[in-house]
This record gives sequence, structure tokens and C-alpha cells, in this order.
Amino acid sequence: MFKERKAKVEKAHAELLTLKNEPVLPGNGIYTRYKYPILTAEHTPLDWRYDLNETTNPYFMERMGINAVMNSGAIRIKGKYYLMCRIEGMDRKSFFGLAESDDGIHFSFTGKPLLMPENPRKETNSYDMRLTQHEDGWIYGIYCAERKDPDAAPGDTASAVASAAMIRTKDLENWERLPDLKTPSSQQRNVVLHPEFVKGKYLLYTRPQDGFIDTGSGGGISVGYCDDMTDAVIERETVLDEKIYHTIKEVKNGAGAPPVKTDEGWLHIAHGVRNTADGLRYVIYAFMTELDDPEKLLYTPGGYLIAPRGSERVGDVSNVVFTNGLIADDDGRLFIYYASSDTRMHVALSTVGQLVDYCKNTPADPLTSHESVKQRLEMIERNRSL
Amino acid sequence: MFKERKAKVEKAHAELLTLKNEPVLPGNGIYTRYKYPILTAEHTPLDWRYDLNETTNPYFMERMGINAVMNSGAIRIKGKYYLMCRIEGMDRKSFFGLAESDDGIHFSFTGKPLLMPENPRKETNSYDMRLTQHEDGWIYGIYCAERKDPDAAPGDTASAVASAAMIRTKDLENWERLPDLKTPSSQQRNVVLHPEFVKGKYLLYTRPQDGFIDTGSGGGISVGYCDDMTDAVIERETVLDEKIYHTIKEVKNGAGAPPVKTDEGWLHIAHGVRNTADGLRYVIYAFMTELDDPEKLLYTPGGYLIAPRGSERVGDVSNVVFTNGLIADDDGRLFIYYASSDTRMHVALSTVGQLVDYCKNTPADPLTSHESVKQRLEMIERNRSL
Repeated sequence: MFKERKAKVEKAHAELLTLKNEPVLPGNGIYTRYKYPILTAEHTPLDWRYDLNETTNPYFMERMGINAVMNSGAIRIKGKYYLMCRIEGMDRKSFFGLAESDDGIHFSFTGKPLLMPENPRKETNSYDMRLTQHEDGWIYGIYCAERKDPDAAPGDTASAVASAAMIRTKDLENWERLPDLKTPSSQQRNVVLHPEFVKGKYLLYTRPQDGFIDTGSGGGISVGYCDDMTDAVIERETVLDEKIYHTIKEVKNGAGAPPVKTDEGWLHIAHGVRNTADGLRYVIYAFMTELDDPEKLLYTPGGYLIAPRGSERVGDVSNVVFTNGLIADDDGRLFIYYASSDTRMHVALSTVGQLVDYCKNTPADPLTSHESVKQRLEMIERNRSL
Repeated sequence: MFKERKAKVEKAHAELLTLKNEPVLPGNGIYTRYKYPILTAEHTPLDWRYDLNETTNPYFMERMGINAVMNSGAIRIKGKYYLMCRIEGMDRKSFFGLAESDDGIHFSFTGKPLLMPENPRKETNSYDMRLTQHEDGWIYGIYCAERKDPDAAPGDTASAVASAAMIRTKDLENWERLPDLKTPSSQQRNVVLHPEFVKGKYLLYTRPQDGFIDTGSGGGISVGYCDDMTDAVIERETVLDEKIYHTIKEVKNGAGAPPVKTDEGWLHIAHGVRNTADGLRYVIYAFMTELDDPEKLLYTPGGYLIAPRGSERVGDVSNVVFTNGLIADDDGRLFIYYASSDTRMHVALSTVGQLVDYCKNTPADPLTSHESVKQRLEMIERNRSL
């Protein structure tokens, strides 16, 4: 039983890990999807899931199953591509594991799950890490630490509070835990560190969830500064990209990966959320900010860049695409790493040139059907006059 | 890059547009589904989405992508079938575009998106048009105009109000905008114009969303009259088909297409909504009203006529089928046009004879499991005594 099952399971796992992925062509010209997810629960190492001892696991059963691999931070170091994956066990607890790749498309997990150094304010769940190679020399990981709401009503076993937890490393192996970020807003999720100093300070993209909001009517992706990442305090959050009625970011939005520096500005990917009769719908959108002043929006292409398609549409939390990893290669290729429906990881391959072209030339959301049709008719007239 | 991609994209588009659809047999005998959707975002003309100029679009990227084609009004004129489609851009703005067909099954878009004449009370979004060829000589289009709720709390970027906007034409090309419908209810969606005068007045099917409801405890599809479509005011709404606990229209319901006149009564299709742990579920149902008195229900077959099946189940708003287009042909064929999951259009083909038989002979909803089993046992006993 044990040996037979183990051989079969190992064979299937090896086949999955050597499956060659294929671009889906012709696509929309903005980016290219790939046919298969790049990482799933089934990609995790067998010894992370199975007790491999025949005496203690005669049935060769999964002992500690893994449910999903999703929302992964990304970084490229010395020619290798790394994803800091959000891995979710059967018990709903998320943790982090590193996957590596030589081509940015085919990944495999390496080492062991990251045992997060504890913070005095112990968290229940840890997820959605963004990796930033900062010009101060450190690689920072910022993730969401979730704890039960201490003010939850008796019997309310579901209310939680989220804050931005922070770690740093120089080698992706030895991590130092820093105190959680302090902001005027009582909760934080989707916090991202800008890779360069701005005005001599660390710039963080935040997403105030309630409390004081400096500008804008409804909140959105915000900017805040701090002097010291080892005791990070943001005194003031300024809305950079606000949520707006009847857009793809009507209900909420949040920063994705650290922005990529291009000749024409900082390139951002983010997620936008709207409500539907069937629950929330998460899509990915892009925008650019000014090179010299990351607080100034430069291009805001209307609508979404990536929405769930085909088998991406369904998963543990359906109708979701989410990104927190973006790698710009030396040759100009741009790898957008995104998860679908809180279940699996994908890559969309583009170039910095294409995404900058997309940001510059996609008209901004004109906010009404009438104006949107006018935008489209202008393009149709130009096309028909060719 | 441009020429190569353009050729590939054009080839894929041409193949999609010439795909021959096939009936899915044997079906349930009430109607026949077709294997493929009849219209999707990918069916929209390339020059509605791509900038075709190599200089300004060297990557041949989609410039103004289209997200979905759904909820379409339908009409047959001089032997041609037309769908007034709800088309949704990447920016979430819906607009209308006309598709035509010689056989009622294979459609292609024609012309350009409809630039809606503006109303002084500018709307944000426009969708779900019903087309009625009225005996007054005009073709009316009634659709939902959505605006941000002026009473939304600060920071609430999502609340909206819906009203029934109206246009009319004689040729499907030149449209005249009329003032929005005024009703006792503060909001309206799913308003449908009856094709004939009743008591010398225009009869509209409405769906009061709050405020005064004349009869019935929970509201439902209602009937109202007005004298003049150029300044349409309904003073009083009377519930025709109410929403009922533990039916397929428990949470809400709404009129579908203008009813079809048959020898035995007016044939209606409508949508009913119930709630689930995974959001709302929309199905299509049918009923008939008396020929001489459209305010009187004649047959109310229990349960749904069409529910989402297979790939219809999943989309931008999953678990939805929705209809606002119905065409009765001279030869008795009946084309039910419906959208699945706010994403794509389908056709179900039936005949007036079949649907009238369905309405007459499907037992009405008996409202409890016990009575429902009794209904079924009676049929089983009759079957076994054959």
C-alpha cells in the first residue's frame, strides 16, 4: 500500500513539476496569459504534506494537506526569480514559502515553510507579502497580520483586525522581524514599500480602512512616509488613487506590488473591487505616477488590466484576481504574478514598453456610459478613416 | 509585430463569427438550448476595441477592451432579427450596440455603439433595454439609468439609484430621448412597455423597489398606466405577480421582455431571484395573463423555465440567467434570448404552442414540499396506470 501509493504520488508530482507551460495566443496584445497555473497546492513538496515514514503512515496519507497557493510577493536576485508564496493549509492558516525559477515561468518550492519570528502582539494569520528591494540595502517583506478583534461582541467569532507586519532580510533566508507599522488608520492591509527614498524618507503605500483620511471622499490607495523602518510610524496618509462610484474600484482598492521604475514614471499594479449580486469581484488595474513625485498620478488607464477568465473565475473565493508580485527583467520583460480566486498562482507576461504604452494610451475612465461611448466612437471614427 | 498580431487576431475573430451553432438535443421538450453562446465580448467588432493604426498602436493592443455582452432587448423587423445588446467595457460602463441576424440564431454586430441622447439628469450607467413595437407606431426602448445615490453617506462610493429611461425610434437608427418614467416608487428597474393600448392607455410593467405598494405584502412585478409616453407618469402601481416565500422569486422578480400575444392570453417571461449562501440566484420563469385584461393572471406554472446550466453558471456575476428579449416568429417559433452570468448571450428556441402548453399544464407552485410531492405522486400514479 505505502510503497505503491508513494510511487504513484511521486510520479504525478514529478510530472506536474516538469509540465511545460505554454503562452495563450494571440491574446489582447497587452500581456500574454499562460495555459496552466504556475503554482498550486499540488506543487508543494510532498514532504511538506506527507509523513514519509511507512511505520507511522502505512496508508501513505496526506498528514498535513495544503489547500492553496496564492497571493505571492516577487523578487529577482542574481538572475533568479523568487516568489514568496502565501500557502494555506487545510486548517485555513496561511504561511509563507519560497519558490524559485530560472525563467520566471516555471517555479518550484525550495527549502521549508518560513517560521515567522514572533512579534509580542501575536497574530492569528499571516498573508499577502510584498517584497521590496530597497535602496537602503535591505529586502523588506510587508504582509498582513490578522488578529481577532478584541472588541468583538460575545458570540462574534469572526471579527478581525488587520495590520501591516514587517520583516527584512539580505538573503531571503535569515529574516528579522520589525514592529508592525503604525498609521493613523486603525487597520491596514495591502501595504507596499516604495523601493527608493523619497524626500529622504521611506514611502509606503497604505490603504486606510477607517479613521482619519487626509483627502478624497471615500479613501483608496494612500501614501505615507516614515523615517525608520525599525520603528515605522506614519503620521499622515494622503490618498493617491481613490475609489470611485461605478468604476472597477468602486468598493475598495489596494496597492499590488512595489512599483517598477520606468523612463516615463513609476508603473503600478493594484487591485480594484466592486460588488455584485454574487459577491465581490476583484480585478487588477494599472496606473503610473511621476518619476520625481510618486505622490502625483501621471496616467490612469480606465478599467481593468486583468479580470478572472475561464477556470480562473472559480476557486475558494471565486471571481477574484489579485496581484502582489511584479518583476521587471533586464531585457524589458515584465512578469505580472497574480492569483486567481484565492486558489492558485498565474503569470501574465508583458514588457515594460507594452505596459507603459497601455497606461499612456488607454483613455482614463470617463465615469459615465455616455462619455465612454464617445471615447469609443472617436476611436472607431479614426479606424474607419484609415 | 503589428501586422503579424493583427492577422492572427482577425483570423480568430472571423472563425468565431462564422462558427455554426448547434441545438443541444433532445433537451426537455419545452425549449432547445444551443451549444455556444450567440454573442460574447469576443464577437464585438475589432474596430470597436483596437486602434487599427500601426503608428499609434505598434503592439496591436486592445485599446478599449470589451468585457461582456449580455441582457439584450429583441425585435424582429421585416424578417430580420435584432438584439439591442448591453455591452460592458473594461471600465464597467454599459452601453448599447445592435446585432442582427437572418435566422435568429447567428448574430453579428452592426454599425457603431449607440450614443445615447442625454437627459438633463445625466446618468452614470445605462443597461438592460427592452424593445417594444407599440401599436402607436413607435418602437420604444426602456432601459435602466443608474445614478449615484445623492443621499449616500460620505465615503459610500457604491450606493446608486435606478430609474426607467426611455427612447423611441421608427428605424432603430434615429432615437429620440424621452423624459425618465415617473412612478410612485422612488426607484425602477426592469420596466417593460406592453405592446398594445389597454383601456386607451399605455400599460407598463414596473417593479417598485420601495415606497408605496398598492397591493401584495412584498411587492413584485406591477402594472401601471400612463397617458403619454413623452411625459410618462404612472400614478398608481398594482402588483400583478408578487414575490413569495420559498419560491424561485422569493427575494425579487422583474418583468422580462414585452409579452407575446397568443390566442389564449399574453405570454410573459420574467426573472425570479432567491438568495443562497453564495449570493443571489437568478432564474427565468413564465406566466400568462388574460387577453382582455392583462392585469389578471391566467396561468402561473410553478418553478423556473430556465436556470443556469453548465458553463452558463459562471461569469462576472455567477448563477444568473436573465432575459429581456423574446421574439415570436410568424411561423410560431419563439426565440427566448437570455444572458448567462452577466457575461454572454444565448438563445433558447421554442414555439408559442409549446410555451402555452407549458404554462397551462405545469402545476402552479404549491408552496410546500408536502404539497409538491402530492402533485408529483398524482402524475406518477397516472403514468403507472397507463
